[in-house]
Amino acid sequence: MAQAVRTSVFQKDFPPALERRTNTGEDYIEQILTVEAEKLDSIRVEKILSFHMSRDIGETDPLTEAKTSINRVPNFEKLLKAHRKSWRELWKRFDICIEGNMKNQMLLRLHIFHLLQTASPNSIKLDMGIPARGWHGEAYRGHIFWDEIYIFPFLNLRVSEITRTLMIYRYRRLNEARENARRSGYRGAMFPWQSGSNGREESQELHLNPESGQWIPDNTYLQRHINADIVYNIMQYHEATCDKEFMTLYGAEIILEVANFFGSKAEWDDAKERYVINHIVGPDEYHTQYPDSENPGIDNNAYTNVMAAWVLKTACEVFHGLVPSRKEELRNQLDISEENFIRWDQVSRKLYIPFIGDRIIAQFEGYEKLEELDLEEYRKEHGEYLRIDRILQAEGDDPNRYKTSKQADVLMLFYLFSNDDLQEIFKHMGYDFDPKMLSENIDYYNKRTSHGSTLSKLVHSWVSARSDRKKSWESFEKALLSDFEDVQGGTTSEGIHLGAMAGTVDLMQRCYSGLRMNKNILYLNPRLPDNLDGLNFKIRYRSKWLSVHINHEKMDVSVIEGWGNPIKLGFGDSVYELSIGDQKTFKLKNHE
Amino acid sequence: MAQAVRTSVFQKDFPPALERRTNTGEDYIEQILTVEAEKLDSIRVEKILSFHMSRDIGETDPLTEAKTSINRVPNFEKLLKAHRKSWRELWKRFDICIEGNMKNQMLLRLHIFHLLQTASPNSIKLDMGIPARGWHGEAYRGHIFWDEIYIFPFLNLRVSEITRTLMIYRYRRLNEARENARRSGYRGAMFPWQSGSNGREESQELHLNPESGQWIPDNTYLQRHINADIVYNIMQYHEATCDKEFMTLYGAEIILEVANFFGSKAEWDDAKERYVINHIVGPDEYHTQYPDSENPGIDNNAYTNVMAAWVLKTACEVFHGLVPSRKEELRNQLDISEENFIRWDQVSRKLYIPFIGDRIIAQFEGYEKLEELDLEEYRKEHGEYLRIDRILQAEGDDPNRYKTSKQADVLMLFYLFSNDDLQEIFKHMGYDFDPKMLSENIDYYNKRTSHGSTLSKLVHSWVSARSDRKKSWESFEKALLSDFEDVQGGTTSEGIHLGAMAGTVDLMQRCYSGLRMNKNILYLNPRLPDNLDGLNFKIRYRSKWLSVHINHEKMDVSVIEGWGNPIKLGFGDSVYELSIGDQKTFKLKNHE
Repeated sequence: MAQAVRTSVFQKDFPPALERRTNTGEDYIEQILTVEAEKLDSIRVEKILSFHMSRDIGETDPLTEAKTSINRVPNFEKLLKAHRKSWRELWKRFDICIEGNMKNQMLLRLHIFHLLQTASPNSIKLDMGIPARGWHGEAYRGHIFWDEIYIFPFLNLRVSEITRTLMIYRYRRLNEARENARRSGYRGAMFPWQSGSNGREESQELHLNPESGQWIPDNTYLQRHINADIVYNIMQYHEATCDKEFMTLYGAEIILEVANFFGSKAEWDDAKERYVINHIVGPDEYHTQYPDSENPGIDNNAYTNVMAAWVLKTACEVFHGLVPSRKEELRNQLDISEENFIRWDQVSRKLYIPFIGDRIIAQFEGYEKLEELDLEEYRKEHGEYLRIDRILQAEGDDPNRYKTSKQADVLMLFYLFSNDDLQEIFKHMGYDFDPKMLSENIDYYNKRTSHGSTLSKLVHSWVSARSDRKKSWESFEKALLSDFEDVQGGTTSEGIHLGAMAGTVDLMQRCYSGLRMNKNILYLNPRLPDNLDGLNFKIRYRSKWLSVHINHEKMDVSVIEGWGNPIKLGFGDSVYELSIGDQKTFKLKNHE
Repeated sequence: MAQAVRTSVFQKDFPPALERRTNTGEDYIEQILTVEAEKLDSIRVEKILSFHMSRDIGETDPLTEAKTSINRVPNFEKLLKAHRKSWRELWKRFDICIEGNMKNQMLLRLHIFHLLQTASPNSIKLDMGIPARGWHGEAYRGHIFWDEIYIFPFLNLRVSEITRTLMIYRYRRLNEARENARRSGYRGAMFPWQSGSNGREESQELHLNPESGQWIPDNTYLQRHINADIVYNIMQYHEATCDKEFMTLYGAEIILEVANFFGSKAEWDDAKERYVINHIVGPDEYHTQYPDSENPGIDNNAYTNVMAAWVLKTACEVFHGLVPSRKEELRNQLDISEENFIRWDQVSRKLYIPFIGDRIIAQFEGYEKLEELDLEEYRKEHGEYLRIDRILQAEGDDPNRYKTSKQADVLMLFYLFSNDDLQEIFKHMGYDFDPKMLSENIDYYNKRTSHGSTLSKLVHSWVSARSDRKKSWESFEKALLSDFEDVQGGTTSEGIHLGAMAGTVDLMQRCYSGLRMNKNILYLNPRLPDNLDGLNFKIRYRSKWLSVHINHEKMDVSVIEGWGNPIKLGFGDSVYELSIGDQKTFKLKNHE
């Protein structure tokens, strides 16, 4: 990495006589500029820096490049002008306007700003993944987790080429994921929970508990759900773009390899007469082991099992939709046969979902046997956002013993899928899903969540949006403050929480607008919370830009520009066809 | 760059007792393996090498990666199996079968093989351009020239994502091309004739004449036509794929910036009452200066001027076809206004084309004043493929004095455009183009071409295909031998000539089949030479795979698989619509 700096001084717009002295020490370099000035003289100092890395595309020597750049860049005024131009264009596509609360609006824009600082049309030129904390700090050492699942929906519906490139980042690392699976005794590809630059496993094996100063063994690397999350992202991108070229060349291969992994990870359980996925960890990182066990991991995490079933089903469908020549090619190259598809179908229909009683989905098998913990008691001392794991460990206790989650786990299912989708998946798996279970499960887990992750309030806001708009809005406003008020207590200085930032924006875009994409239909069924007077944004769906205006009385949708077939727009029980230039107004029901 | 090697020895399928000794010297490393064996014992040695570079995607330390790889790779048998699988799949898409001559078939496959060694689905993961000599040797030090213009047509019609990535390679270097234009006093982007890794100008300023041992000043860097060639490639890709997403995001921006460059490069000439482009060099590298001039470059190279006019016209059309929001964005970001479009239109209509008499397009202004040179005289001594520049320079003479070309220059126009296309362009420029001029110009320049470039026979074969199929076939067979017989006398050992290799394949694909893409129609009007009995290949056009079988009596076209709207197939004066599953047979006229 190399930086070059150009410092220019202007006195009444002209460069004054100037003495420059450069001092270098072991770990610093400074330049001292001395200029003679009268009292009240105005002096302008322009300091411009160029930054280059050996990983920049096509560059060999960062120092040469940094020097070349700094010699080329114009003055500050011109740089600022170009910068403003670029941002003006970005805001045209990426802004989301809300009516009713200026502070919320500003926070949403702060989030959009930070998102675009991390992933933007500039990213298309690079080989980069979505880092959990943006490029803003050193937390997690730049590892790539699952945060893209919260971030892609906003990008998919604006400049989908950004998402395309970010998914090709994963594709480029498919061989490393294959090796990762092979090493663990599985088929296909197993993307690691935290991956380093070339896609290798980089999850930590120990982590520091700042409450106790102790290093604790860390089993969170067992979060195999990240593989399903990647498949989910591909399918969401595909719904937004219908980019069959991407699916044919890249998407299908990833999906099949992940299906191959889950197909080999699932085992038949004679007693249950179902397939099980054991020794893994779900999104909730407080539960990485049974309290009485020596072995890492828990069994049959509901989120992972439902996602795995969905992946296996999706893989069969995606493969079925490919052109015959690509089918043959993939079958040969990935060494998959009819038998694999039969197994995937069987496993997807017979994966086990643990329940507590009839209607509460158990976070994992045996969850019901854990002890209750009175979170409110701890909140009195430690505040709302509890890292209860650290607190308990410092007390010599273990979060694995309790029914207490760091973040949404079961509820992630309601975040990613609509009730209709879930009904379909559960039915496929041979389980009943009653839509009323939604609020019962929310209640059950909300009480037991410490919100030790910034992603938690966000997901809680989302899943409550239909059942309890007031509570949803409260959670949204809290999620909105995650970084602005550094609610986790000091974590923002190590980098913003990009997933939570993008997620709050997506709450406006998809949740309150009721935006859902499914089987070539774009659904918009808005239900604004009372505190939200209106919502205005543009989205790009299947090569067409749409403008959407929503308030409590009506929704206007117009198809502004683009190409391709008319879009299918679902509202209520009807589906409308809209061509370019079409505009349609929908009357919204009054509030209950 | 790091390599790691694994050498395994097997005696009757088992590893024998073995002594290994490694010796390293200043510039070598060797390993000596000693094994005891009886007479006639069979011993099998497997030597497997892994190769990694710091420029490989996501890799930090090549040595670590090379060691990791060599520990992971399976044995030779498994590697060979995977290798065969991959090649088998490649051949399904990329093979071109000819009937009538086994040697030619083998040479074509040799060319396809080398092409795929250089650019293949593997390239999609990388940031790479098309090197003139493949990855096969050190000639030109890996610089990127214009060779892609000969290579993309074959890739466009099979796995267009390869071309897409290769064009994004150019897009990534647009800023460097902008800087290059700015430094020379022009607007827009000026891609250099030879570019280095980050897109910077890397054309040589001197070159060695091996005939004389002298270093000669080299002005070939003035080949500004490469900018038009890049635009041509984008438009060909667009015709093949209709990838509007690519055009919107990348293609249009490159095209507009190149138009911006040519718009500022062209000057008004009062005497001619036309725009002129002076001080440049055309594809023919024997003419880089007027014999009586001190200044580098020649004026009004016909190829460059026609291409520039076509670029300026195309830029206006492409811009017009963009969605309004992208128009606005590009106008702001590239700082182009209505005035620019007016100028581009004017320049495109009024660029000067030099003529010799009425019907011979002059290679450049003043070409007619140059002296004739008797190439046949030189061929007696030096053979068919003359580097007449070197011979003349060694004699103290200068190729700039003579009407002698290294390679096709004017004729490139007939290579890139059909008669109909050229008629349209010439008309737009205010010139008449009589299709009969084609053979007159071929005759004129054929006599005066030394074929000092491997690309020359290829282009001559192509442009004669309609007027003189016998001569065309002769030239094709000579082009086919370029590297196989190393006709340039020793250049193949420095790397294959990728443009010539791909071009001979494309002669089968597009020239003899009469394949042309224009305004959303795919034309196929085959005219096989007598020595070619039949032609069978598959192409992918607009997301659909087509199979094409041609012989002297008939042509079968079927649309095998894919998606999207039916294709429009032009044959003779008619246009047919073909959907997936459709097959159509066309009777071909008997030979004249």
